[in-house]
Amino acid sequence: MDKKMLTIDLNSHVLLDKAERDGVETMYDRKLEMKAQCGFGLQGNCCRICGMGPCRITPKTPRGLCGADQHVIVGRNFARMVAAGTAAHSDHARDLAHTLALTSANGNYQIRDEKKLIGLAQEWDVETEGRDIYDIAHEVADIALMEFGKPHGTLKFLKNAPAPRQQIWKDYKIEPRAIDREIATIMHSTHIGCTGDIDSLIHMCLRTGMADGWGGSMIGTRISDIVFGTPTVRQTEANLGVLEENKVNILLHGHEPTLSEMIVLASEDPELVALAKEMGADGINLAGMCCTGNEVTMRHGVRIAGDFHQQELAIITGAVEAVVVDVQCIFPALAKVADCYHTKFVTTSPKAKITGSTYIEFCEETALADAKSIVREAVLNFKNRDKSKVLIPELKSSATVGYSIEAIIPQLDRVVNSHIDPAGTVKPLVDCLKSGVLRGAAAIVGCNNAKGVSNEAHLHIMKELIKNDIIVVTTGCGAQTAAKFGLLEKSAAKKYAGKGLATVCELVDIPPVLHMGSCVDISRILELVAACANHLDMDMCDIPAVGIAPEWMSEKAIAIGCYVVASGVDTYLGIMPPVAGSDKAVQILTEGLQDKVGATFTVNENPKELAATIIADIEKKRVHFEKLVEEKMAVPAEA
Amino acid sequence: MDKKMLTIDLNSHVLLDKAERDGVETMYDRKLEMKAQCGFGLQGNCCRICGMGPCRITPKTPRGLCGADQHVIVGRNFARMVAAGTAAHSDHARDLAHTLALTSANGNYQIRDEKKLIGLAQEWDVETEGRDIYDIAHEVADIALMEFGKPHGTLKFLKNAPAPRQQIWKDYKIEPRAIDREIATIMHSTHIGCTGDIDSLIHMCLRTGMADGWGGSMIGTRISDIVFGTPTVRQTEANLGVLEENKVNILLHGHEPTLSEMIVLASEDPELVALAKEMGADGINLAGMCCTGNEVTMRHGVRIAGDFHQQELAIITGAVEAVVVDVQCIFPALAKVADCYHTKFVTTSPKAKITGSTYIEFCEETALADAKSIVREAVLNFKNRDKSKVLIPELKSSATVGYSIEAIIPQLDRVVNSHIDPAGTVKPLVDCLKSGVLRGAAAIVGCNNAKGVSNEAHLHIMKELIKNDIIVVTTGCGAQTAAKFGLLEKSAAKKYAGKGLATVCELVDIPPVLHMGSCVDISRILELVAACANHLDMDMCDIPAVGIAPEWMSEKAIAIGCYVVASGVDTYLGIMPPVAGSDKAVQILTEGLQDKVGATFTVNENPKELAATIIADIEKKRVHFEKLVEEKMAVPAEA
Repeated sequence: MDKKMLTIDLNSHVLLDKAERDGVETMYDRKLEMKAQCGFGLQGNCCRICGMGPCRITPKTPRGLCGADQHVIVGRNFARMVAAGTAAHSDHARDLAHTLALTSANGNYQIRDEKKLIGLAQEWDVETEGRDIYDIAHEVADIALMEFGKPHGTLKFLKNAPAPRQQIWKDYKIEPRAIDREIATIMHSTHIGCTGDIDSLIHMCLRTGMADGWGGSMIGTRISDIVFGTPTVRQTEANLGVLEENKVNILLHGHEPTLSEMIVLASEDPELVALAKEMGADGINLAGMCCTGNEVTMRHGVRIAGDFHQQELAIITGAVEAVVVDVQCIFPALAKVADCYHTKFVTTSPKAKITGSTYIEFCEETALADAKSIVREAVLNFKNRDKSKVLIPELKSSATVGYSIEAIIPQLDRVVNSHIDPAGTVKPLVDCLKSGVLRGAAAIVGCNNAKGVSNEAHLHIMKELIKNDIIVVTTGCGAQTAAKFGLLEKSAAKKYAGKGLATVCELVDIPPVLHMGSCVDISRILELVAACANHLDMDMCDIPAVGIAPEWMSEKAIAIGCYVVASGVDTYLGIMPPVAGSDKAVQILTEGLQDKVGATFTVNENPKELAATIIADIEKKRVHFEKLVEEKMAVPAEA
Repeated sequence: MDKKMLTIDLNSHVLLDKAERDGVETMYDRKLEMKAQCGFGLQGNCCRICGMGPCRITPKTPRGLCGADQHVIVGRNFARMVAAGTAAHSDHARDLAHTLALTSANGNYQIRDEKKLIGLAQEWDVETEGRDIYDIAHEVADIALMEFGKPHGTLKFLKNAPAPRQQIWKDYKIEPRAIDREIATIMHSTHIGCTGDIDSLIHMCLRTGMADGWGGSMIGTRISDIVFGTPTVRQTEANLGVLEENKVNILLHGHEPTLSEMIVLASEDPELVALAKEMGADGINLAGMCCTGNEVTMRHGVRIAGDFHQQELAIITGAVEAVVVDVQCIFPALAKVADCYHTKFVTTSPKAKITGSTYIEFCEETALADAKSIVREAVLNFKNRDKSKVLIPELKSSATVGYSIEAIIPQLDRVVNSHIDPAGTVKPLVDCLKSGVLRGAAAIVGCNNAKGVSNEAHLHIMKELIKNDIIVVTTGCGAQTAAKFGLLEKSAAKKYAGKGLATVCELVDIPPVLHMGSCVDISRILELVAACANHLDMDMCDIPAVGIAPEWMSEKAIAIGCYVVASGVDTYLGIMPPVAGSDKAVQILTEGLQDKVGATFTVNENPKELAATIIADIEKKRVHFEKLVEEKMAVPAEA
């Protein structure tokens, strides 16, 4: 099989050929070399949870040594994915809360969005009148930090959901307590000899996932906006063609803006720019990958080099002086790939040291100085670039990014009749959904997965949906597919969107696919759906909106899926999670949860079929939605 | 192979025959039916950490899709075991802290050890003078609860360790922050694309394990003593022969004393005793299993029915009206086994629901009432007992239990020359170690594991050690082996112990093996070793003391191993953890850690060889210890 069959990205094709010539191994090689994957692992019914195992479930040995059957084993394995995914976002958000606590008027970290801070302070009953903004920030940070470990009560953000949704959480008992407590408790409950019931395990998954969506992720996004600025609409470009032949190329890869924001600042430092010129470069060129790429493009327009599956390929261009990473989704393989070129692979977090990398610890307390050291390393490395090894592929697409809710609303305001309606609400969006001009809304999020063809499912489903007048919002590596294939251009509406969506896009001047940020920023999407539901006096499950992860691969995606479903939003996966070994688990996740939370998972590994199902399901959902809309209009508002 | 080859317990043999006749499947059947276990799982080099996998490491495919090699994969899997083990103890201790917060003069839960509460309050700078004991209790509870989630600082109990040990923790950066934070952060760091370095992964394992030993476990034990009383020396009996033909037999199985203490109280309720008689029984007979068995035998002398591997067999006697469980180490298989008899399998915790059980939720707020409902269920079930199906095997051993540190010290005081030395210290123990009358001390702890023969390794190693004048302390299912095989009898010293140990046992009136409690109570052992080291002005690694888990199986045991090694105590395992796939992991755990924390792991699955190694290592350690003792004696104490 040709490796190039494994990705539809043409730049990737060019670099896979180069890798071959350079004798460099990539994920695509490993994929081809890999024998059939273990069926027990794929099905989720291999148990390694105690030291008596591993126990594998077959028709002849239907129970592990302790008596755990396939449902218990699948459920526990799934629950631990949720735990790890939630932990990733929790730990990310905790760092941001610590960063907020470190902000000061003259410090490395300052308050960039005072309004958002004040809003959060008021939401959390922090006195704001006549106080120094940094005093407020520090008190808010203290409260945020307690959300991870407070001994009593449930998460503060839950109350932002529509009232009927809150009632569902209360009734189904999935209101999360402190974020880290939910992680600890689900790890405990999946220990040998604790929960042995699939209903109970999935119930805990939803509660733990909720601690991600309405906890870690939401805290992460809010504080990022407060400290680094809420994203605004801006232009950028995407794909490996953004690397520059004559500049020091620094790749930012990972997740937490705490690091990348400082690198952005450091890369503009006149001294370092001068040093770059001294080294013979025209300057310093930053490019982002994965969610760090999303963070810095949303706030600074830093160009996107590529997605999760392109991290090795970027180095293989031979034109990257440094890959600077913090946490999550970083191939340990980068150490070996970087060794084949002059590239420095710089790890920075004690939470994610990687053998073979250059470790330069990044501390929030000495943030800018640390960032400058890292950039200096990269700049000094320019002289080691071997020009004969450089091949920067040509393709790149332009893209409009930065669609935080705060950036979307002013776009919507363009069509508000200010004589009738107030500005600054989601009403125009809701009206489009009500009228059917937009049939629905879809969040297409998540990773790339080597089980499929890189970018293929993302691209197909996005195109199909917008063709059918379903507006798409996107985050994570999904957003990078959209960027690379031109779907974040405003002109894409005319090219690809159905008539309704194209009209809306033209009127409010947006692309048909809106880049809303990184994977923690799926919390923005939750808030947007909640705002629409609140506006309509409905529950979130009443809105014709869906979540889709066509190429998910990380445990975060599983946690996200759980909180999206728990929030009443039907969720579609393009890769089967390891649950097929338990028909009960499959039944609960794909059907049973409907009665509990008003939404379920749907899985189909064929992108064409999946897209068709989603479109049909949205139309079905519209029947219910339109009926509700009618009912609400028939009932006069209470005086 | 005969199933009876898989356990040395003779009662178990009797019941395995009965199970065969009754057509009931047990763990031993499943063990025999199981094909060879998966080599990848056994070696630890199967990665299921992201949705692109599973990836299995072979010489032909030495890296997973992301590039993770065997070291990274083994290390991450091992780290997640530590996370789960720590989570189990964290969650247990949290419940106890909540229980302490609920104590009141007239409530279900009261303060039974005021002195211990006052001691802890003073340790934590809580005002005690002139305050109501329950006010103090509630303030201490609040502080304890914050240990799980406090945003700043490290764990409070660390300061009880000898100063040089604290320095090692500081230098190696393994002082744990909040307990749940360590769990969350190690789950994050083992997410795809975070830590890709085996040194770093094992470092995190030690820090997380420390959050168990000097955090969750220590909080759990302290508060259990405060609320339920610190154990004192008492007589009991052990093995399935403690079940009674003519009584309502209730089996208590699980871990948290919060439930079992209330069941003890409820079982003494005159109304329920009368009801039992009305049902034709002579009364109510409680018997314990696993760590709940240890908790209630330590505090009430409730007899021990058996260990982890006997939980099914207990039901197979046909004489058990109810198995009442809370969390951890409960076979889901109990539902099926109980179905074959009249036995009610009662689950009580939302953290551990099990399909096929009778779920009666136990709430601390309504504790005694809940416990009475549960006991009533059992009593009413007596009428359903089928006498033709009853077979209670005859064997049981008598045992002396209850050796908390507070119970050991008064025993030691028996040999204190009160003209020279103060009473109430560990000096007599230390003196025996110094003189060599006792060659060393060993903690033999942990589970049973179907990879070996039930009880064989525990029993062999205990006997060998005491024969060689090494005093043994024990907890968990190891303690139950000791109890069943007569090693907790005072007379065992004469029968099995070497001359030195036998003399000591006679003088201080103790058995050669001391039962110190449940698995969280390994914290008692930490405190005892720390007390000896402090008394000698040494570090914990200087004492000729070792930790041994001959038949470990639970993830808790892995967390425990990590904190015991991190505390400077060499740790011996009789079952290989799933790390053999990485020679680096093996090297660090068995050698490399020596330089970091002054202790390592040793693994040998042959109990005879393992015992011989331990004895030899203790003798080696004595050389260093005796030299240190001499040096300390040569240096005059500072004025």
